Formats: sequence, structure tokens, C-alpha cells
Amino acid sequence: MTRMHVTYRIDATPMQIEARARALAIEQSVECPMGAVRDARVRDAVVGRVMDIVPAGENVFEARIGLALETVGDDAGQLLNMLFGNSSLQPDVRLEAVDWPDGLPALPGPRFGIDGVRERLGIPRGPIACSALKPQGMDVEALAALAYLQARAGIALIKDDHGLADPVSAPFARRVPAIQAAVARANAETGRRSVYAPNLNGGARKLQAQVQVCRDHGVGAVMMCPLLVGPSTMAEWVADGLDMPVLAHPALAGVGRIAPALLYGTLFRLFGADMVIFPNFGGRFADDARRCHAIAEAARAPLGALPPALPVPAGGLSPDRVPELVDFYGPDVALLIGGSLLAAEDPEAAMRHFVDAVEQQGRT
Amino acid sequence: MTRMHVTYRIDATPMQIEARARALAIEQSVECPMGAVRDARVRDAVVGRVMDIVPAGENVFEARIGLALETVGDDAGQLLNMLFGNSSLQPDVRLEAVDWPDGLPALPGPRFGIDGVRERLGIPRGPIACSALKPQGMDVEALAALAYLQARAGIALIKDDHGLADPVSAPFARRVPAIQAAVARANAETGRRSVYAPNLNGGARKLQAQVQVCRDHGVGAVMMCPLLVGPSTMAEWVADGLDMPVLAHPALAGVGRIAPALLYGTLFRLFGADMVIFPNFGGRFADDARRCHAIAEAARAPLGALPPALPVPAGGLSPDRVPELVDFYGPDVALLIGGSLLAAEDPEAAMRHFVDAVEQQGRT
Repeated sequence: MTRMHVTYRIDATPMQIEARARALAIEQSVECPMGAVRDARVRDAVVGRVMDIVPAGENVFEARIGLALETVGDDAGQLLNMLFGNSSLQPDVRLEAVDWPDGLPALPGPRFGIDGVRERLGIPRGPIACSALKPQGMDVEALAALAYLQARAGIALIKDDHGLADPVSAPFARRVPAIQAAVARANAETGRRSVYAPNLNGGARKLQAQVQVCRDHGVGAVMMCPLLVGPSTMAEWVADGLDMPVLAHPALAGVGRIAPALLYGTLFRLFGADMVIFPNFGGRFADDARRCHAIAEAARAPLGALPPALPVPAGGLSPDRVPELVDFYGPDVALLIGGSLLAAEDPEAAMRHFVDAVEQQGRT
Repeated sequence: MTRMHVTYRIDATPMQIEARARALAIEQSVECPMGAVRDARVRDAVVGRVMDIVPAGENVFEARIGLALETVGDDAGQLLNMLFGNSSLQPDVRLEAVDWPDGLPALPGPRFGIDGVRERLGIPRGPIACSALKPQGMDVEALAALAYLQARAGIALIKDDHGLADPVSAPFARRVPAIQAAVARANAETGRRSVYAPNLNGGARKLQAQVQVCRDHGVGAVMMCPLLVGPSTMAEWVADGLDMPVLAHPALAGVGRIAPALLYGTLFRLFGADMVIFPNFGGRFADDARRCHAIAEAARAPLGALPPALPVPAGGLSPDRVPELVDFYGPDVALLIGGSLLAAEDPEAAMRHFVDAVEQQGRT
């Protein structure tokens, strides 16, 4: 019998916890009273099973529950569904961690991983400078001009602002070729290999057209928000052989109560992310250092036979934090600095300062 | 200038709130320091604008922010992104409500609405009995036999358990034709028009194949979990003319960071849901009555020119609550009872009892 071991954090009294954990095991599997489970195979192989319960504070427990892998199949959305679909609606439960002692579900994982991303960027070791094209509302020419500046300054990875979808001010089909051309021109001048990652968005039809634009114009990577395009959609693209590294963005991720290390580090990676953006500590997202460290560790930790994903801390960073952050995360990291460079009196100089700071760290 | 008015609930002191609201307006629009916004049009038409701030308790405020509709375009995921993409990651913010004084974004809304669903079910007025096929893990024959019993008993809407995706125990391509045939056979015997709603799941390729199975076999409705298949995916299917009413399931919707009335009642409906399942009060999801009432009201309230969606409260209901719930929600409601019918000593009698209770309410 093949199960995954799922750890939930539950608010309950010592009197309640055993019954609460049993109810949760049922909620996340057969989702009906045990009296309605009349099939012996289902009772034996499918009903969730409470494996252990340990105290985690006053009236807080961690319960480990074994859930049948057969209920997940090979679908990313269905994995999330079985881990937390219904219990996300119950305020006393939080999804903490998952172990797959019997093997991972059949999901793609990163196609490129850290090594593949480094190869594409031409940066074999050390931290990677990443920036964003913003503010939204700018037209195609202004965005392309900004991308040119960033690539000229040596920013290795240049991503769309996650708010740039397909607006009239800069429609995807016009924006992406123009920005890609600007980055290619800068690369020809610098001899670097900066990569542009546009923000894929929309339903199947739109995504198909967008991927075609990227392929037609030699775009080097793509960004997706797994919770906006849908985890299944993202994983299907990767499983079907998407030929560009995927940068995952955490938009909307805060709605549920899933431990960030699990969501960004493990699940987004399982869905096919080669790089994962997450809110850094000390910025404008209030995440603490321990939690951020756990995200980066999870993204790079052994996970079946899957390659590691590159952690990309972001959110209110500035170049003077580069040494501290590389020291904290280690050299396998991309640092994403967007707004603070653009707000500088001399944005070009700020970009070069950022790139210099990154290149002084850990490339030796 | 066309804006939507978005209300956020923010934890802040009276000293902090103005700056906090301004920062939020920026986070959900240009997402960079104002110093980086050098384009006058962007500053004027795109940067979010704090419209008003009112106290909502001790150190809690409601701030109304005007966000440019041009940043949303016609994409459902992008609407969620602009409403709450980044600020969902900030623990002091909650998304409460949206008004569209300048018109709705170009999203499909329900194609069928309450009237279209009623027509399909042959139930012109009064509450509607709904049940679920569970537990997961049962094989196709057992699920079809259960669907037959439910349809024979007069359950009008029979949905897959949301945990039934495409498992080896009951693959979609074999399950759906068998269950549809069972329901059709029961309908032929009873003269009723019970409808089966299978759970669409997966990425674009899988969904395409699943919709084809549904069409080939005359399936009367479909279920989707918008946050699992992706809001954009769901809305694109509806916009492209999906010819079956859509039942939306709240899996992964989490608790409370987006007000449930907004998420289930308004947003899921904008994405194309004809019927919206939500956790009822007094069941196993701890939602309070006032909040549930607001969800049902939002699903049926005027919203541009869109038809209303049918509220479907669910989660630990039992037939003896039918009169109370119809009284509470009014007759435009479907009551979803799954597990408690199946756990009864005589499930068939329990189903008939449920249908009788529903049919005694408000059909006259």
C-alpha cells in the first residue's frame, strides 16, 4: 500500500486531538462518515490513517496522516486537493509537511534545475542577479528600453513584473518580441547571456499562443504563477516538454495556510519550477529568516531523483544586502531586486552596483 | 479613467493606517516605489489610489482602493492577481469586497444561471436536492450503482466527490460514461431529469479530453474547482462556449483571507460558475450563518448584466435541516447532502426522505 505522510498542525485540546486527527484523515480521503465506507478495499487502502500525533505547543499538535497515493494520480492540482483541498476550509488546520517514503507522485519536477538554469545564463557558480520590468502601465517601447538597460548592466535574469499579463498598454504578443530583441541586442554588445522571462498567463488557448510567441522569438525562460494559471496547467506544460526554464511566482499563495517551505520549496518544484520566487525576510512581506531559510533548503534538498530548484528571494531588497543574503542563503541563489533599482536617482548606476555586488560574492 | 473599488481590511494603528493603505495601493498596482514611476500616464491612470479609510474596530480599518481595470484585461487569474496577488502574502491584509462602478471586467459570468440550471433539471421553482458520489476508491461499477440509486430516489443533481479526479480505481474516461448511463436509465424509469456533474480536473490537454467525454455521452453539467484548475482555465472554457452548467467547488479556497461572499459569490460567478458550493454553517466547516447568508446573497445579487448563480451550501448537512435551510436561504438554493445519506442504515430510504423533504419546501 503506497501512502504519502502528511503533517498537519492542528489547534485542539489534548482531549479533542485524537478525534480531530481522525476526522481530518477522513476529510482528506473518503470525505464521508466511516459508516458509508462499505467497501473493504477502500477502508483498507484509501481511508486516511492517523500515524502519530505529537504536541507542538499549548493546545497545538502535529498529526501525521497517511494518505493513499492512488488518489493523487499524476495531477498537480489533485495533489494539492488531496493534501489540503477541503481542510484548507477548516480554520484549525495548517498544512506543514509531506514525506513520500514510497516514492513521489508522477509529477514532472524541474526540467532544467539549478544546473540547467546556470548553463543557460552562462554563470557556472555563485549568486545570480535578477530584476523585474515595472511599473505596469508602461508601453512596450519603455519596457524594452528598460530591459536593454538591465541587460547592459549585467542583470542575468530579467522577468516581467507579475502584474504584467496581457494589458492593452503592453500586450504580450507585442511586448515579448520587443523585450527579447532588446535583451539580445544588449547581449551582443556585452558578450553576456542575460535571459528574459515573460509572465505566462491565462487559460489554455492563451497560454498556447504565448508559448508559441516565446519559441518564435528565442525567449530563454518563462514565469508562471502556479496558483493563477493552475498547478495542473503548469505541470502539464512541463511534463509535455516545455523547452524553457520555469520561474514560479507566489501570487495568491497567501490565501491558504500551507507552510511556505512546503508550498514554494517542494510543491512548486514538483509542479516543474526550476526557480522559485518567495518573499524575503526584512523586506515588505514580514517573513522571518528561519522560514526563508527553510524555503531555500527545501528547494535545493534531495527530492526523489528531481533536480534542485533555484531559490529566488525577493520583495523590498536593496543591493547593500547582497553580501548578507549570499552568506545567508549560500551561492546557489538568485537575488531579485526590482523597484529599489528603478527608484534610484541613476537607475543604470544602481543596476551596475547591484551586479557588481553579486559578482563579488561566491563566484571564485 | 476606469477603476474598480477594492475594499481591504487592514490591521494597523491609527498612526500607521494612511501610509499602510498607500503602500497597499502601490503593491496591488505598480508594485515599486513611486520614485520609479516616471511615466505621467502611469502615475495618473495606473497607480492605485486610496479612496477612503474607515475604522472597523480597534486597530482595524477598511480601506477602499481604486485599481485600474486596464491592468486586469479579460483574464480571471489576472483579476485575482490584481485584487490580491501580492498582498495575499502580507498577513495584515484581508480582501473584503469589490465594486465595479465603471463596469465589470470582461469575464464570462454564468452561461446558464439559475434559470438555465432549473430548465435543465426540470425544476422551475423551489429548492433542489443535490448529492455526491463517494467515497473515493470505489470502482466504476459501484459508483454507477450509487448514482443510479440517487437518481431513482429523485436527487436532482449528482456530483462527483471533489476528491474523484482520474484515479486508477475509477478513471474519468470509464467512470463518466458509466455513471451518465446509470443516471439516464434511472431518468427513463422515473420521468425525472436528474443531472450528473463529473469533476473536471487537470491541465489543458486532460480537460479537453474530459469535456469531449462529457459531450459524447450527453452529460448535463460539470464541476470544477476554480483554484485547482485555475480561474483563467475555468473562465476560458466558459467564455469559449462550454455547453454545460458549471458547478464550482471551493477546494483550496482557504479560510477567510478573501471574504467568502466575494470569492464564492462574486468571483467564482464572474469566472463562469452557474452554481457555487460553499461550506454551510453548523456543519464541519465552522462557518457562521451571517457569512453563509452573505455568500448566497452575493451569488444571486445583481452583477452587471450577468445571470445569478445558484448557491449550494454543503458540508455535514442532514435531511432534517432542510426546512430550516430553505427558510434561511430562500427557495433558490440547492442543498448538497452526501455522506450522511450514505452512512444511513438504509441509504435508499434516506435519499428518498431527503428528496421528499426538499420537495415539500417552496415548490408551490
